[in-house]
Amino acid sequence: MIPFNKPYLTGKEMHYMYEAVYTGKISGNGIFTKKCQNFLKNRFGFGKCLLTTSCTDALEMAAILIDLKPGDEVIMPSFTFVSTANAFVLRGAKIIFADSRKDHPGMDEDSLSSLITDKTRAIVPVHYAGVACDMDKIMELAEKHNLYVIEDAAQAIDSYYTGKDGIKRPLGSIGHLAAFSFHETKNIISGEGGMLSINDPQFEDRAEIIWEKGTNRSAFFRGEVDKYGWVDMGSSFLPSDIIAAFLYAQLENLDDIQSKRKDIWNRYDNSFRNKIDLVGGVKLPFVPNFGTNNGHMYYLICSSESERNQLITHLKNNNILSVFHYLSLHKSEFYFKESKVKELKESDHFSDCLIRLPMFYELSDLDQVHIIQSVLDFYK
Amino acid sequence: MIPFNKPYLTGKEMHYMYEAVYTGKISGNGIFTKKCQNFLKNRFGFGKCLLTTSCTDALEMAAILIDLKPGDEVIMPSFTFVSTANAFVLRGAKIIFADSRKDHPGMDEDSLSSLITDKTRAIVPVHYAGVACDMDKIMELAEKHNLYVIEDAAQAIDSYYTGKDGIKRPLGSIGHLAAFSFHETKNIISGEGGMLSINDPQFEDRAEIIWEKGTNRSAFFRGEVDKYGWVDMGSSFLPSDIIAAFLYAQLENLDDIQSKRKDIWNRYDNSFRNKIDLVGGVKLPFVPNFGTNNGHMYYLICSSESERNQLITHLKNNNILSVFHYLSLHKSEFYFKESKVKELKESDHFSDCLIRLPMFYELSDLDQVHIIQSVLDFYK
Repeated sequence: MIPFNKPYLTGKEMHYMYEAVYTGKISGNGIFTKKCQNFLKNRFGFGKCLLTTSCTDALEMAAILIDLKPGDEVIMPSFTFVSTANAFVLRGAKIIFADSRKDHPGMDEDSLSSLITDKTRAIVPVHYAGVACDMDKIMELAEKHNLYVIEDAAQAIDSYYTGKDGIKRPLGSIGHLAAFSFHETKNIISGEGGMLSINDPQFEDRAEIIWEKGTNRSAFFRGEVDKYGWVDMGSSFLPSDIIAAFLYAQLENLDDIQSKRKDIWNRYDNSFRNKIDLVGGVKLPFVPNFGTNNGHMYYLICSSESERNQLITHLKNNNILSVFHYLSLHKSEFYFKESKVKELKESDHFSDCLIRLPMFYELSDLDQVHIIQSVLDFYK
Repeated sequence: MIPFNKPYLTGKEMHYMYEAVYTGKISGNGIFTKKCQNFLKNRFGFGKCLLTTSCTDALEMAAILIDLKPGDEVIMPSFTFVSTANAFVLRGAKIIFADSRKDHPGMDEDSLSSLITDKTRAIVPVHYAGVACDMDKIMELAEKHNLYVIEDAAQAIDSYYTGKDGIKRPLGSIGHLAAFSFHETKNIISGEGGMLSINDPQFEDRAEIIWEKGTNRSAFFRGEVDKYGWVDMGSSFLPSDIIAAFLYAQLENLDDIQSKRKDIWNRYDNSFRNKIDLVGGVKLPFVPNFGTNNGHMYYLICSSESERNQLITHLKNNNILSVFHYLSLHKSEFYFKESKVKELKESDHFSDCLIRLPMFYELSDLDQVHIIQSVLDFYK
């Protein structure tokens, strides 16, 4: 069976983990944590970077940082992972779900202004499959209504947005805050793991405090305060330095990993484009002019749920594991309890019709040819 | 310089981490996570056990599980780590701080009933230095007022409480919920890490959901539901299986670690008892009849803050790193903002006068003799 995902090891993970363990500092904020944070900041021009135990936790830090209060509203797409919503639910916020674009699972930027009320505090664009949302539109809207923008960049490492000014900026560097994931299913991994980039300097000092369990411990170790104590709410968002050591081995090989994944992605796309997309209703991934593809995910949009499910079965019969993706959150059992249901047609369409094909560094040419041929056979 | 703490490696940590990495399942809830959870449940008779990224996160899970609402009150000692309080502050709870016992930094059980109001929802006993609080008193009070008891057992692995019924129970198995820490400063470590034990079966199913980001994913994989979705609030509380692999190597050596640490503790105690405690005001650790010593920490209570600080300096001059401990939380900058300050005399006394001596598995006999002699010299 060809798996849907296989975590890739660059070869130096164990070496760095060994180094972390035998230098004796294995709790959070150690040498490798700093190395990873510096790498990410320097490579992508993010603001202050703080590693977290997960992208979920990075989003939770963001929700604390913007001082969400019960009843505040946060706008995000319905077609996303539960963590995008949960991080804000935990602060008592009401989630307002936006529909997806017609051409892409990312949220429909033009629908956002109608969702803004006097209780709205933040917009959370999710860069689905690493493809940018239209950040100019979102940032302008946020500025107009005095809202924060928190990018859910879980899938979006090394992907870019080109704005009206013609400048190409890395995703995760544009919103006031941005959250990344290093879960084993991502391009760059550490098992579980995440990172918050703090692009708005007003949040820098407090982010460090919240990260360190609500204490000014970091300032203390820099000699800025005499003793450290409880100065704010917070949690233990720091991953063990063992996890950071693993991550650093991956980051060092970012270019190689990205190049390989994009090759696999392009091979899929070149094999399918102007072929199965000419068969009734099938759609291939769309990357808007302002966005880039970072080789995170290759998906197809089938013309119906039954076609999608048949394709999954067909591929399974050919020893290929393909998978659907998110169930629209606005239709979830949990959200039902809290809010009136609204029709979000495009989001439901992607829940019903999207299928993801195997996509990982070590996918062999032979296996990929087999996957491509099996999909082409299905649509013959 | 003799350090205050040095993380101990049993020797198999890297081996198990290698196993976790090369079997390809390095996200949460993998093979080693299950091994650790089973070990802890079977060894100590805890209820369901769930590993977490930290003890902080285990406490946060507990706060979510008991459905704390803004304005609810939670009683805990002021002499504790910030995480004990933060986990409940994040749910909007008001923290009511109890004073410490006269004879021990644990909270004064007899003071609790005066702190209970109609808003009180939970009591959080902290087993300081791994020494039990009087759990019979606390559980009876909780039952009378319909409160939950969440044991902060961060330091309390392999320590016990003997109740009025004569039965010796492991700490962390008595309250409705209990949180453990595997931070590198603890007896059993994984860098960062923790565990929630769910002793009240009413919480078992929901704990698993909250742990899995508010989804019924675990039930889905057991075949109990058709598809999984968002059914509750939650977060990503699962540590990477790499962390669990490290932890498992430690748990396998629990008896050896504990035996060695208790030997070191006893050597301190035998060297000081009936010596420096006969000098004006110095007190040695007190373990009530109902409790046990788990070799987590050896401390002295000096007769004044200045004496304590002089002793720290004296030891530093002798190349020994000794440290004070918690600053009373009720006097913290953060709590000041929220609540009226109350005098908690004993708590402040321990903040001012407690000193912890180096205590770790690899502390050599020679070094320990030097520490003991340096303390005896100070009081000569």
